[in-house]
Amino acid sequence: MRNQRKLVLFIAISLDGYIATKNDDLNWLFKVEGEGDNGYSEFFETVDTILFGRRTYDWLMEHEAGNFPYKDKECYVFSRSAANGLNNVKFVNEDIVEFTNKLKSAEGNNIWIVGGGELLHYFLKGKLVDEMIITIAPTIIGEGIPLFKADQYQLDLTLKGTRRFNQFVELHYDVKK
Amino acid sequence: MRNQRKLVLFIAISLDGYIATKNDDLNWLFKVEGEGDNGYSEFFETVDTILFGRRTYDWLMEHEAGNFPYKDKECYVFSRSAANGLNNVKFVNEDIVEFTNKLKSAEGNNIWIVGGGELLHYFLKGKLVDEMIITIAPTIIGEGIPLFKADQYQLDLTLKGTRRFNQFVELHYDVKK
Repeated sequence: MRNQRKLVLFIAISLDGYIATKNDDLNWLFKVEGEGDNGYSEFFETVDTILFGRRTYDWLMEHEAGNFPYKDKECYVFSRSAANGLNNVKFVNEDIVEFTNKLKSAEGNNIWIVGGGELLHYFLKGKLVDEMIITIAPTIIGEGIPLFKADQYQLDLTLKGTRRFNQFVELHYDVKK
Repeated sequence: MRNQRKLVLFIAISLDGYIATKNDDLNWLFKVEGEGDNGYSEFFETVDTILFGRRTYDWLMEHEAGNFPYKDKECYVFSRSAANGLNNVKFVNEDIVEFTNKLKSAEGNNIWIVGGGELLHYFLKGKLVDEMIITIAPTIIGEGIPLFKADQYQLDLTLKGTRRFNQFVELHYDVKK
């Protein structure tokens, strides 16, 4: 029997819980001294499918279009309207929960939700996330786009492991169902 | 030459950054499986002075008055009005920054800011905190009293160490000046 694919969150945050400043700036993150690629390529090998919100996808196309970093993965962008995309990118205008559960019951490796904040919140609150790998940067940025939006919900987690990458600390959790 | 005393934050938070629920509930924290006392007594030995906001002190007196846990330390409560206190508790109605700098330049061991949220925010934003020891519980509580209140300020930190206490992860930072 094969294992069910897992929906995984893999993201870096400031110590005060932000994934970016309000104007999508990440310089506070890039200046942190890590170690190697801070576990990124090891994680990247475990997924074959990637989910984005539309705003995050557009940001990526604007900033990294010439060198789209997810060319070898199956990419899905949740969006009310389609757009021209790369060959491996599909636009999805379906119920997010239904679509994601369909993906999860198909065969394959794990599925990574890249973001953005609204989509992550939707997946967290809906208890769709199976694992969380959160890397904490040694900085307090004061305000920005929070990973965890204040809302009425609770999730209990199990700490699977923690690793230090120089100034970063990685926390790896399973979400209890 | 002796070392300058340090102002230290030592606190547990949920993964989404809360120190308590909105109604001061801590059951989400107490149910986590830790290891020993999760570093508490080791830390407690390093401080001889403790700072509180008035609301936190009143909460403690209401819930733990018969067994006040800080009897052997010099305790200061920032408050506009004095109240009956234990022998080792003084009420301070002075400028917080001036008073704290006076304390820091006096001889002694480290100083612990217990809380609450408003006082912590004041000390953080004012760059008065020297070290932060934050213990992360494996739970998302959704809403509550945040350790880091959204505001316009930035602090760069240096990760001194990280330890795992069963389901808790401790992050130990120096605040860069």
